Amino acid sequence: MSENGVSSRAKVLTIDTMNPTVKKVEYAVRGPIVQRALELERELSQGMKKPFVEVIKANIGDAHAMGQQPITFFRQVLALCSYPELLNDTTFPEDAKSRARRILQSCGGYSMGSYSASQGIESVRQDVARYIERRDDGVPCDPDDIYLTTGASDGIVTVLKLLVCGEGAARTGVMISIPQYPLYSAALAELSAVQINYYLNEETCWSMDISELQRALDEARRHCNPRALCIINPGNPTGQVQSRQCIEDVIRFAAKERLFLMADEVYQDNVYADSCKFHSFKKVLFDMGPEYSNTVELVSFHSTSKCYMGECGFRGGYMEIINMDDEVKAQLTKLVSVRLCPPVPGQALMDLVVNPPQTGEPSYDKFIKERTATLSALAEKATLTEQVLNTVQGISCNPVQGAMYSFPRITIPEKAIKEATDNGQQPDMFYCMKLLEETGICLVPGSGFGQKDGTYHFRMTILPPKDKLTILLNKVKEFHQKFTQQYS
Amino acid sequence: MSENGVSSRAKVLTIDTMNPTVKKVEYAVRGPIVQRALELERELSQGMKKPFVEVIKANIGDAHAMGQQPITFFRQVLALCSYPELLNDTTFPEDAKSRARRILQSCGGYSMGSYSASQGIESVRQDVARYIERRDDGVPCDPDDIYLTTGASDGIVTVLKLLVCGEGAARTGVMISIPQYPLYSAALAELSAVQINYYLNEETCWSMDISELQRALDEARRHCNPRALCIINPGNPTGQVQSRQCIEDVIRFAAKERLFLMADEVYQDNVYADSCKFHSFKKVLFDMGPEYSNTVELVSFHSTSKCYMGECGFRGGYMEIINMDDEVKAQLTKLVSVRLCPPVPGQALMDLVVNPPQTGEPSYDKFIKERTATLSALAEKATLTEQVLNTVQGISCNPVQGAMYSFPRITIPEKAIKEATDNGQQPDMFYCMKLLEETGICLVPGSGFGQKDGTYHFRMTILPPKDKLTILLNKVKEFHQKFTQQYS
Repeated sequence: MSENGVSSRAKVLTIDTMNPTVKKVEYAVRGPIVQRALELERELSQGMKKPFVEVIKANIGDAHAMGQQPITFFRQVLALCSYPELLNDTTFPEDAKSRARRILQSCGGYSMGSYSASQGIESVRQDVARYIERRDDGVPCDPDDIYLTTGASDGIVTVLKLLVCGEGAARTGVMISIPQYPLYSAALAELSAVQINYYLNEETCWSMDISELQRALDEARRHCNPRALCIINPGNPTGQVQSRQCIEDVIRFAAKERLFLMADEVYQDNVYADSCKFHSFKKVLFDMGPEYSNTVELVSFHSTSKCYMGECGFRGGYMEIINMDDEVKAQLTKLVSVRLCPPVPGQALMDLVVNPPQTGEPSYDKFIKERTATLSALAEKATLTEQVLNTVQGISCNPVQGAMYSFPRITIPEKAIKEATDNGQQPDMFYCMKLLEETGICLVPGSGFGQKDGTYHFRMTILPPKDKLTILLNKVKEFHQKFTQQYS
Repeated sequence: MSENGVSSRAKVLTIDTMNPTVKKVEYAVRGPIVQRALELERELSQGMKKPFVEVIKANIGDAHAMGQQPITFFRQVLALCSYPELLNDTTFPEDAKSRARRILQSCGGYSMGSYSASQGIESVRQDVARYIERRDDGVPCDPDDIYLTTGASDGIVTVLKLLVCGEGAARTGVMISIPQYPLYSAALAELSAVQINYYLNEETCWSMDISELQRALDEARRHCNPRALCIINPGNPTGQVQSRQCIEDVIRFAAKERLFLMADEVYQDNVYADSCKFHSFKKVLFDMGPEYSNTVELVSFHSTSKCYMGECGFRGGYMEIINMDDEVKAQLTKLVSVRLCPPVPGQALMDLVVNPPQTGEPSYDKFIKERTATLSALAEKATLTEQVLNTVQGISCNPVQGAMYSFPRITIPEKAIKEATDNGQQPDMFYCMKLLEETGICLVPGSGFGQKDGTYHFRMTILPPKDKLTILLNKVKEFHQKFTQQYS
């Protein structure tokens, strides 16, 4: 049988012969700790005894999974678009029907089952442009500069793809904050670009300091070609909201140092601290006058997954490109055409986010009530999280000014650090794994996002319902005290 | 103002400083001819006079845009999943409701707005596995080998990404058919992999000949490391359906030559010719016994976009991986996790495709009626297309055995070839552009898919409704005669 050696032949594709850049990719938000959480859930459902009755996943910004309710109006319109027969149903409000009709009229054959233009449905891009103009107090926005995307991740990877070139010391470097959202490091690893870390300042509520940007850039220039600067505002995983002044300084820095700016602004509605306000990079750029607004290249990303809607599963998003070279833009349009189009239901949802019910429309009151309820609950949970965590000796938590996460610093006893290191594990991974096994709480270790050497953190979403969040926080508190005692 | 040179500074990102691999990407299906078609549509809507009253887009397999109706049951379930309030609506059939409940129960928080597992919703993967087992007469399928995708394109690019490595003569080469679907060439260009062309035999109805595979492979081995072989069956753009024997030969070839097989089987329900039947690569592989079924690495791709459903806009799909090395599989799982998950509405739709109404269920009769109507109409149009085109002197068209396209060969007079070449245009691009300007019909030139030197073709979908297709075919006929006359 194995005369020709077929049955015993080795695999074509093995870990040693596969794409080495893929192997370098890491994505902590869905890493080993989440694998283990899923296993524990399965074991629980099989009746295995655990020291807890359920796994609470505070590892990912997945609002609906944590019980947040969708906006009724959005889902009504999506149902109408999915099954247009419902347009004859008198129980649906008229404004939902008129939105659905408008979306369907922009779809080939009046169906969400048709491909859209690769850049996205034109009428949706128009609505996005008008939304941005309202948000930015009238700064003009051209629908032709809007690209709809499959979630923000898709847009970010696409833009990075355009930027990467060169070899050796000429290789493109991209500046990202540390801590960062690991999509960035994963995409840069896959593209073999150089990751340039700039550290946020934990002592001043994760502020972004120009001197640190300069340090990181100057060092990087010795071994690569830094070309882009990524900012996440409001911050993920760190929850800070940047001041207007800081944004202006960053833009001035980018202009001086000739950096392409990428502003991840998916949490633009998630601002809780009274002292903070969301300022879009575009608005600040245009306020700085033509010297900047005509030259600085900027892409801003938004998504249907966060804010008050939390519609992650639909994979909707957009990016706005500003001051992009025309030839590059043509290349971008060509590149996105290969994947045909972003999912149309996600495009429809993006449309509703940027064009929600207006005063006087039948769905307006309900929409405002639902949106306010979600955002107020998040604000309350942001405060609760910070307060409870700061009562624990050995945990210190900056205010959660915005976004959906706290990223507290934890003190890990030397003995625990040693045990972890002996096991080849990051100390905060060791901590989070123990927490999971003992309490069922799933958090992500700070090492998955990056942190200053010798410091340890975890990222925790503030999304669980208040009663569950309270239990969770108290369990973390108890666990931390026990853990500290055990290893002291 | 320009003291510091800011206002006059050059762009960071220009055509000369962007990623060179992106520049190499080409995607004819949405290339310049489609751009022009969109312009013409805009001009018509602005009241400009043209020699036609509408643009007919036969360039892309976009069924709903061409008037094909969605399957009622699918859309009912999607509406129920989007807006679960409708579960109380008595006008929806019970089987639609029970499907919707099952899908929602698999979604976090009972909402399609939650992220799913990155590999896809578990219950959907179970349904896919059962579908494959039914399709392949009981060959077992493990849901753990199923990955849901954002359309088939996403899956294909992901698998290619795993395969590509090496530099220079060790660079990964991937064999693709010529003519090909240009997603393959685009993805290979972007990944800097080596494209290895094997030619389908137009004289024998676009058959795939092992001797040609061998020739292509032997030549390629001199300058790269061929590792994978891609097959599209039923064929795009060529419409052929492979015989069981041919598939067996291809598998034997892959085993002998140590090639990783990628079978693009998105048209598996689109078989029209009485003499033809769809055979999955997996089924044939398992029929060949353990010598092959335990060793040959195969990935098969499917999608919600084609067949009788034509739901392109939802970007749903799956891939089944067979005999993949466990460590590589773990890398694949990690890689897909970076993009979080495929769109959940597309996953739900994929679930319905693999688990449609069953005998005895209230929606069964209607479902069968709708599916049969669409597939019969396509079969009729496949024949019509071949017949009419073959009445034209200078056009010769193979039978459209399956898929959704005809790819007829056209004779272009020397004078036209010269005029095109003088303009720096491919002769068939020149032909198709003229056709578009004179008739409003949008086709894709054969050069966008690849063809033997000195031959010319176009790809035309068979999707327009029969009456429109008849008009279209007659206009093509008229145009070809006029064009031939003009340039003779």
